[in-house]
Amino acid sequence: MSPAPRLYGGVDLGGTKIQTAVVGARGKVLGEAREPTPASGGPPAVAEAIERTVRAATDAASTKPDALTAVGVGSPGEVDEGTGTVAQARNVSGWDGPFPLGPTLSESLGTRVVLGNDVSVATRAEFELGAGKPYTSIIGVFWGTGVGGGLILDGREWSGRGAAGEIGHTVVKIGGRRCGCGRRGCLEAYAGRASMEAKARRLVEQGERTALFEIMEKRGRTRLTSGVWDRALQDQDKMARQLIDQAVEALGAGIASANNLLDVEAIVIGGGLGTKLGEPYVERIREAMMPHLFVDDRPPPLHVAALGDLGGAIGAALVAKGKPASRG
Amino acid sequence: MSPAPRLYGGVDLGGTKIQTAVVGARGKVLGEAREPTPASGGPPAVAEAIERTVRAATDAASTKPDALTAVGVGSPGEVDEGTGTVAQARNVSGWDGPFPLGPTLSESLGTRVVLGNDVSVATRAEFELGAGKPYTSIIGVFWGTGVGGGLILDGREWSGRGAAGEIGHTVVKIGGRRCGCGRRGCLEAYAGRASMEAKARRLVEQGERTALFEIMEKRGRTRLTSGVWDRALQDQDKMARQLIDQAVEALGAGIASANNLLDVEAIVIGGGLGTKLGEPYVERIREAMMPHLFVDDRPPPLHVAALGDLGGAIGAALVAKGKPASRG
Repeated sequence: MSPAPRLYGGVDLGGTKIQTAVVGARGKVLGEAREPTPASGGPPAVAEAIERTVRAATDAASTKPDALTAVGVGSPGEVDEGTGTVAQARNVSGWDGPFPLGPTLSESLGTRVVLGNDVSVATRAEFELGAGKPYTSIIGVFWGTGVGGGLILDGREWSGRGAAGEIGHTVVKIGGRRCGCGRRGCLEAYAGRASMEAKARRLVEQGERTALFEIMEKRGRTRLTSGVWDRALQDQDKMARQLIDQAVEALGAGIASANNLLDVEAIVIGGGLGTKLGEPYVERIREAMMPHLFVDDRPPPLHVAALGDLGGAIGAALVAKGKPASRG
Repeated sequence: MSPAPRLYGGVDLGGTKIQTAVVGARGKVLGEAREPTPASGGPPAVAEAIERTVRAATDAASTKPDALTAVGVGSPGEVDEGTGTVAQARNVSGWDGPFPLGPTLSESLGTRVVLGNDVSVATRAEFELGAGKPYTSIIGVFWGTGVGGGLILDGREWSGRGAAGEIGHTVVKIGGRRCGCGRRGCLEAYAGRASMEAKARRLVEQGERTALFEIMEKRGRTRLTSGVWDRALQDQDKMARQLIDQAVEALGAGIASANNLLDVEAIVIGGGLGTKLGEPYVERIREAMMPHLFVDDRPPPLHVAALGDLGGAIGAALVAKGKPASRG
């Protein structure tokens, strides 16, 4: 009798939803589940919701949580991979102090739990199994609530002293728009969904018109989700188009700057807005990048993240599997 | 009888001067020589001038060119390390097509000649022997005629697909000042000495006053050299101060953006202006960086390049020696 195949759980903990997958040893998704991220109850409620999604995903894969070799969690905020603690996950409601997410989940699921940074694990998934597969060096750009970045250089993740990849805080305009981080002129101040929503609310207060918030309400949302932006753009909403134009311009400049510095083989664009708006908008980012690219006769290809919404969960499972991102 | 110690030549080919050094196996400078870069005669005249500096430096070190184990040349422009050809060294007068600099020098000097990129070799010298010695990852920023950059990550030079390090073309202001490269809003458009001089000339044409050009003429110069800027700043020249303020602001933003992306252990600031203006201005760049630094509770230290004007020549000698930049 051959031994049972090794299975891994992967959890992508986001500000709006928890996406979980059960993944085989070669990266195939065998079951998945998702839940909205609890808006109240803080980290303990989030841990319970994660547990439920792991149970649902293992059900779908005809297995059980304690049969998983390990579960990986890609988390926003400050992740201490050694202790399994997450501190200050600002995008997750009520998460304002350190919480031992790893040990808590390990106890409730009956298996080993490994934490990683959400953007790093998503970059790794695209590198190993997605749009980054043909390359040895990529920049992953995750265009969603914020703008996150991950770097794979010469087949290995580059994390610097632990905080590398903050492409969202590239200064694209000295003295420019205020960013959610409190600084001025960051790429994220123009392209992050949260910043774009804040700007849209200010414009409405100033008397400008838009269908963005009607679409939001019709859909029963309280935030301008990627789907809301997509709808408004399809409806030719003027404010939505202007704000997205500015986002695309800032992304083009920020990505060009990053590539002038690193000269990688390819750029992968993911995140909620990146995957929702897809290739037509990645094409626009490509065009916005070109005028700023120092070596413009061989621009790095820009690809839409191939694993879409599941990239974060798959990447978290890869972290659980422990195989380092390595090729080159 | 012990064998003769191995000696290496290093040549820093710049737009205004050629600086050459004879360096021992452990990096000690045993002799040096410099000449202005020929303003006419094109690449052959430059090759002859390099030959003269190597002869003068070997004389000073009581040796001869053909007794050197190898000579390294750090060159601007597009360097083909395989064939020893330099194409389009725009900063060197009359160098507008490919010229076989390596083979030409090898023939005239009677020893092996190795080419490298000027900024890469200077970064390597600071990493191995200068201000970068204590670290495993650094960004070298060379603030001179232009703004060049070199990266050492995890003990190894990162050159990407061959063109990494162009920190001078980080977009710090979308739609901003025109850069010498033709693009808009680059860091170099504000901080490069050539761009600052062009801006100063435009301001004078518009009727603004400055002592910059008087100082230049008094010194028998035709360009605003680093020494001219230094003098004007000491004289409290208003235009010089304004332009340097803008340069410092742009450097702060560009360096912060690079570090938000890479999170290295230290930044080393060299180049003509960096070494001439020195620590007081590096301190100002540090202050200008802080408001844009995403993780600001442990900013990377900024150091003035420790090898000063000789860094490029020493780095070129290290390339000749062939020891890879490696530590960590």
